[in-house]
Amino acid sequence: MKVYFVSDGTAITAEVFGSAMLSFFDIAIRKESVPFISTEDQAHGFCRQLQEEVDAGEKVMVFFTISDPSIRAIIEACNAHSYNLFGDLLSPIEQALGVPAQPQAQKAHGIKEGIYDSRIDAINYALANDDGASIKNYDEAEIILLGVSRSGKTPTSLYLAMQYGIKAANYPLNEDDFTQVGLPKILRPHKQKLYGLTIDPVRLHEIRTGRMASSKYASPRQCRYEVDEVEAIYRQERIPFLNTTRLSVEEISTKVMADMHLARNRS
Amino acid sequence: MKVYFVSDGTAITAEVFGSAMLSFFDIAIRKESVPFISTEDQAHGFCRQLQEEVDAGEKVMVFFTISDPSIRAIIEACNAHSYNLFGDLLSPIEQALGVPAQPQAQKAHGIKEGIYDSRIDAINYALANDDGASIKNYDEAEIILLGVSRSGKTPTSLYLAMQYGIKAANYPLNEDDFTQVGLPKILRPHKQKLYGLTIDPVRLHEIRTGRMASSKYASPRQCRYEVDEVEAIYRQERIPFLNTTRLSVEEISTKVMADMHLARNRS
Repeated sequence: MKVYFVSDGTAITAEVFGSAMLSFFDIAIRKESVPFISTEDQAHGFCRQLQEEVDAGEKVMVFFTISDPSIRAIIEACNAHSYNLFGDLLSPIEQALGVPAQPQAQKAHGIKEGIYDSRIDAINYALANDDGASIKNYDEAEIILLGVSRSGKTPTSLYLAMQYGIKAANYPLNEDDFTQVGLPKILRPHKQKLYGLTIDPVRLHEIRTGRMASSKYASPRQCRYEVDEVEAIYRQERIPFLNTTRLSVEEISTKVMADMHLARNRS
Repeated sequence: MKVYFVSDGTAITAEVFGSAMLSFFDIAIRKESVPFISTEDQAHGFCRQLQEEVDAGEKVMVFFTISDPSIRAIIEACNAHSYNLFGDLLSPIEQALGVPAQPQAQKAHGIKEGIYDSRIDAINYALANDDGASIKNYDEAEIILLGVSRSGKTPTSLYLAMQYGIKAANYPLNEDDFTQVGLPKILRPHKQKLYGLTIDPVRLHEIRTGRMASSKYASPRQCRYEVDEVEAIYRQERIPFLNTTRLSVEEISTKVMADMHLARNRS
């Protein structure tokens, strides 16, 4: 089955929603996004390409979000099962709100943001306050992620920045920290912002082996030792923590937001 | 208007789709995600909180994606306009596919991925091959983004990694490169992977001023000079390029994927 996500914009909405719908079905799917379809010619071109695949025996499905009625009509007339993702809900929402939908309102959103919005600040912050960074600026942090090397701190802090504009620092806990009593000094003034990540030691061993095979760093014994130590710190210091072993970056980030009562910094 | 995105998972699908729907309306909205609603108690708790807001005179709207029918029924019975995002499309898709939806299939997707999937490799790659990095590994790159400082290279390379698992390096073009003839030597073997970003010099001046006010780096003259030079390089070397001034990270990334015919590395 070939599935297209077609849009006059980025097609990200069509892709996220269509993928979620298709995740209910246990079938093999090849996905392709077709963004920025903004003229009738482009729409006709897409339909011709689709028809070639149908002629070659392919099963094709189309999820689309398109504002312009004439372009939408072309996509709807394609020789495929096609689903207008905004179709069924728009008029009930119009009724609930008591105002008509304005297709042009949507465009304005994209332009308003631009590349240097609050998220970019947050991304720069995450990069400047990542593992290896020498100068820390924890006063500005909304959250500081703790964890052993390769427990998911960096991708999580970047996702929080990218999706929610949250300024997330991260601090790698290592053997130097385990021999101290209590929390590392630099973290103590920021206790309310601390959030721990942990991971199954066996999985940690696999991940570290992928980066540095046969090292002490990747050994099962070292992985178990480090995980035991950080979990002991989390419990002693009453730091909320999460096991990332079976979670995607999206799931980790969403749980962190909920647990820490963080509010997004972008609309 | 208060809008809730409610889900038994991350609520990201409800949020992306609901936000896209609401962008058609020119009304002020406060958004809140309510993820991981997986028991009837939690659903009842949410409805009570919502009722308090309604009692306080708030207008409330709910977009939800929930698999369990009994939990779904509780959310649907809340005192608000509520929209089941998977409701209307699931049975037409079942008919088209000729197989029934399996709610449990969805769960399997999340667990399969886990934190250290292909995206994490791509994020690590982007970080290791970002602006400041000393050791470059361009052989492994799927794309190398070029541009002056603050034209959007880093957020774009991270978004490509996070969303699509694409290994994107980035190379900052600066005055040393402008005085040479042709492309910087290190880029020449990788010409097919090069993609340029550019930006309106006035906007670049604003962004740089935010980081280093009154510097030569941020001066209107310097910004114009650098932008003129990189655009001259792009044209001479026939490198495809994009003006990022009015685009979001999502729009830039989607255009880059389309222009370079890049295919996602994750399902």
